[in-house]
This record gives sequence, C-alpha cells and structure tokens, in this order.
Amino acid sequence: MRLDQALKKISPPAPAAEAAAQKRLDSLTKPPGSLGRLEDLGRRVAGIQGSVPPRLGKKILFVFAADHGVAAEGVSAYPKEVTAQMTYNFLRGGAAINVLARHAGVDVRVVDAGVDHDFPPLENLRALNIRRGTDNFARGPALARAEAERSVEAGLGLAEEAAREKPLLLGVGEMGIANSTAAAAILCALTGAAPRDVTGRGTGVDEAGWARKVAAIENGLELNRPDARDPLDVLTKVGGLEIGAMAGAILGAAAFGVPMVLDGYISGAAALLAHRLCPGVKDYLFAAHLSAENGHRAMLNEIGLSPLLDLGMRLGEGTGACLAMGLIEAGVKIMGEMATFDSAGIAGKVS
Amino acid sequence: MRLDQALKKISPPAPAAEAAAQKRLDSLTKPPGSLGRLEDLGRRVAGIQGSVPPRLGKKILFVFAADHGVAAEGVSAYPKEVTAQMTYNFLRGGAAINVLARHAGVDVRVVDAGVDHDFPPLENLRALNIRRGTDNFARGPALARAEAERSVEAGLGLAEEAAREKPLLLGVGEMGIANSTAAAAILCALTGAAPRDVTGRGTGVDEAGWARKVAAIENGLELNRPDARDPLDVLTKVGGLEIGAMAGAILGAAAFGVPMVLDGYISGAAALLAHRLCPGVKDYLFAAHLSAENGHRAMLNEIGLSPLLDLGMRLGEGTGACLAMGLIEAGVKIMGEMATFDSAGIAGKVS
Repeated sequence: MRLDQALKKISPPAPAAEAAAQKRLDSLTKPPGSLGRLEDLGRRVAGIQGSVPPRLGKKILFVFAADHGVAAEGVSAYPKEVTAQMTYNFLRGGAAINVLARHAGVDVRVVDAGVDHDFPPLENLRALNIRRGTDNFARGPALARAEAERSVEAGLGLAEEAAREKPLLLGVGEMGIANSTAAAAILCALTGAAPRDVTGRGTGVDEAGWARKVAAIENGLELNRPDARDPLDVLTKVGGLEIGAMAGAILGAAAFGVPMVLDGYISGAAALLAHRLCPGVKDYLFAAHLSAENGHRAMLNEIGLSPLLDLGMRLGEGTGACLAMGLIEAGVKIMGEMATFDSAGIAGKVS
Repeated sequence: MRLDQALKKISPPAPAAEAAAQKRLDSLTKPPGSLGRLEDLGRRVAGIQGSVPPRLGKKILFVFAADHGVAAEGVSAYPKEVTAQMTYNFLRGGAAINVLARHAGVDVRVVDAGVDHDFPPLENLRALNIRRGTDNFARGPALARAEAERSVEAGLGLAEEAAREKPLLLGVGEMGIANSTAAAAILCALTGAAPRDVTGRGTGVDEAGWARKVAAIENGLELNRPDARDPLDVLTKVGGLEIGAMAGAILGAAAFGVPMVLDGYISGAAALLAHRLCPGVKDYLFAAHLSAENGHRAMLNEIGLSPLLDLGMRLGEGTGACLAMGLIEAGVKIMGEMATFDSAGIAGKVS
C-alpha cells in the first residue's frame, strides 16, 4: 500500500463500541472504575476493534534493525558492528526482547531495515533491501527522499500483512547503534527543541560522547535544514531506515484497525513522524513506558500519550512494549472473562 | 510457628548473592543498567533466594476475606453481605483477581479469615475459624488480643506451608467490606496521621459516606486508644482478621526466605504492622502498585517501599500484586535466560 492511500484510510475508532465497553465494565463484579487504567486499555481496544468484549489474538512485535552513518561521529558507547551482532542475537533468542517476549507470549519478528552487513539468507529474518545504513547526517542528508519513503512503505506493508492475522496487538521496537542520535534529531527538527535539552545518554555514552552527540545533531540540523512541515523531509535528512519502517508500521496499524504499542525513545520519534503525517494515529497508539532517556516525556507529550510503565528502562528492542502488551491483554481479558453483578448474584452499591 | 519464633528467624538476604547477581546482569547483552528496575527485581530475588540466577517456581497469592463490624457505621458503598458473595465469586473464578491470575499464571488461594457467613465445606476454601468478623471498633475494640494474635499466626502458618513448595513469589490480597476503614485506622494509630488526611473513598463512598468513615476512625482511635508501640494492640483495637492474617503471611514469607508481593492499601496496612514488629521484613517486600486510595503513598513511604506500577487501581483482591508478579518474574528470567556478551560474540563498550 502506498503512503498516501494509508493516510486516507485512517479513521477514528468506533465511539459506540467504546460506550458499550464502558457499560459492560460497569456491570462487572468490582466497583466502577476501580481497575483504573486497566479499564481504559480494554475500552480503547474495544473501540479500535469495534467489538465488545474485544477478540483476543496474537501479540506481534516487529524489531527493526538498521545502521546509522552518524555513528562515525563517536556518539555511541558501542561500535557500529554491534547492530549486526545483536541482530544475530535476536535470531538466536538470546537478547532481552526474546526473554521478555517468551515471558509475555509475544511473537517477535526481526526485520533487517538496513543493517550494514551481508546476512546469509535466514528463514526468520525479513530484509527490506533499501540500503545498508544511512549516511552520516552530520555531513549531509542521511537518506534520499525515495529511500525514506520506501522505508515507510515497507513498514506499512508489514503491518498490513500482520493485520490479516487478526492480532490483538502490534508493537514496534528497534536496534541500531547511534539511533538515539537520529531520534533526538527528529524530535528537534519537528518541534524546535534544543538538542542539549532532549538528547540523552543512549546506551550510556560518557560526558564527552554526549557532547559529540549534541554537536552532531546541531551540525546535522544546521547543514540539512529539515523542513518541520514535511515529516518525510525530516526522515530523509536526519532519520534512519528502522525509524522510517516503524513510522510506516504505526500508520499501517492505524489504517488496518489494530492497536499499536510503542516502545521507548526511538519508536517515539517514529510515532511523532507518523502523528505529524496523520494526527488520527494517536487513537491507535499505546505508550508502553517512560524511557529513562532524556526527552522521551517531551516526545510523548507532543503526541498526547501517557506511558503505562515507568521502570527506568532504556534498552529499546521493544522490551518496554513487550511488558505493556501483557498489561493491555490483561485489560482486554477483564472485559471478557469477569462475572457480572447479576450473573454472580452480588448486591450492588447502597450509596 | 509462633509469632515470637518467626520474628527471631527473620534475617537479611545474602549480600554475596546480590553482588554475584549484579555481576551476571552486567555480563548480559545489554548496556549495564539499561533494564532499570527490572534488573533490581531480579537482583533482589537472587539475594533473597541466595541463588544466581534465581530458581523459578510457583507464584502463590493468598486472598484473605473477612468482615468488619465497623461496616455498621455506613462507611462502605456496598452492603456487608458482599464479602461472602465475593468470596463465592473468587471460588467460582469470576472475579477480577481470577482473571488476572489466569493471565499471569498465579495460583490463587482463597482464605476465609473471618467472613460473617456459614460456608459449606468447600475444597478450595481454607478457613481460619477464629471468629465471624470483628466488632465495630467505633464502639469498642475490634478483637480480643488473643484473636488478633491467632489471625497473625494463622497467616504465618499458611506462608510456612506454602514456602515448602519453593515458590518464586508469595503475595497477599484481600476482600472485606469496610476494610479500608480499618486499614486507615491502623495507619493513623501507628503513625499519628490525621484520619481525614489518609482516608480515601474505598470502593467509592460518596461525600457523606466519607465523612462517616473519618468520624468512625476518629471515634475508634479516641475510644480504644491503641498503643502505637504495640502493633498487636493496634491490630486488636482497630484492625481486622484478614489484615492480621496478611501481616502473618508477610512475616512468614520473610522468615522462610520467600519474596512477598504486597497489593494495595489494605495489604499495605498489614505490611506496616509487620514492619513495626520486625523492620527486617522490608528486604523481602515488593510494593506492587500505588493505589488510587488516598494515604497509600504515605504508607509505603513509612516502610520505605517504592511501587512498581501506578495505574490508578483501587480494587484490592490482590489484583495489583498479580500484575506485579509478572514483572518480577520477567526480571528473574532476564538474569537466567539472556545471552552474555561472550557467549553471543558481541563487542563491548568503547567509551
């Protein structure tokens, strides 16, 4: 599906289903509203599906990996080779996301969105084949516009394909050495925030590394002049291939009516791009957690999302999304599996 | 086991195991500390078990039900009969706690700690057989001291029995119409807080009901003069049978070396009693969530605990504990199942 078609296809969730969901929640054997945000989660999924109670289904998480030319500026605590090495780790099941996905019953799909490595053909690795990593945006544009667009449409296609499986939830996570630098640059380009206010330590750079990161973003914005009114231009100039693919998957989830669970800072930048392309995506988004990465709260506030968890996590890969998927599924099961006051013969409120 | 024996048996977790756990965490394929509190959870369980990585095992949640004489003061939005009716709901699997326990793989054990109802013999209902509910503490002491002590020792016994199954986690939850009134009274009696500052809406009383609740607590404290230096006296004068049983289960978990997951406001009052009896229990406690009930944060601060979740929940039953058990188990699995940098052939930090 083309991007412009997807944008046209996004429409608001069903208010009638949300109202019916609220009515059902209030008939269950608990004081009204006493499960707090767990009730909101179930109600929102009901609205998105147009079904009360919501149907259960797979929880599918895409992990997009890609390399970044800006790594050459010394902005990460880890060498660039780690992107490919961690991709193999995902495929072998040894990474944090694999452990948490097994724990929460989440189906992880690893996507090579642009790793600078020749992978042999691997059954469980999808490849987007756009290019092997971005150029260094501190020295010129990260991508060509056509490449940025292809990354978004590839993500759209993956979400469309997954939506056919009628999943309960889709989610996005990522891996890419230096990608928190690209995410901060996108945030600055779209909102005008100052790099030093919203740039964090990523995987844990020291003070000098952090200063190089801020300088790279400042240079990149100065040199490339991304146009804040044109999200694709921002993605082209200072973005990344996994960020484009995540933005596409987010738009695709909204277009095909599936709730989308964001992870942390990098997926937040993708969500901000998607939100600028189509503000209506917000109704389909769930912010899993508040990352420890500086600037994440500003990013979520910009979209208008409130995170479910706040555990000081800053790993990415979809680890936060995975934990939140379990909570959202719990909210859905509450609506479907609890007894009602009538069915359980329990007295109602007296006051 | 007698209470005084249990108190003597509580000793600090193994610092060597915590240090070994930290070393293992830092060898795993993620930036050090990047999983935030999830890493703390795993490390604390390792310290409590004295095992790196921690052994997995059952997650067992006790739900203690009991009635409260103070319900006669009109302090709850629901009639007293609901305690027994909800107990049947737990046994049939239709309550929120049953849904969430199935979701998270938690083994729920329902205990009649003093419901004012003649239950027929039921295979899945344990009965403590102390008495059928408390007296109205606004008019006199809630319990006799011997009854309060029996409730604590019964909880201790249940934890001791469960500890033989080598569970990963124990947890406590409760049901009892008017028990947030007793919990608030305990908090005030132990800390000197003013009832109007730490009394919430419980299941959702209106303004007039809230005023009756505050008045009942003020009257109960004035009339019974519970001794803040004697937690058992506080439990006797203004407590409840499920609160005593939870305090006992908490002490028992610490005495037998099993991590204990608290739920919300009512189990928080039980934890505060246990903590006053033996401050060392704190090392075994995990605060699942911040309840929407006014006063819960003050309670947790008093013990020195920081909640894992903040979802605006205020249902009790162990619903918060159940969700947190899933997070704690995730932290344990991270330590046991992730690949190390060495085993995965991944490059380490450069800066």
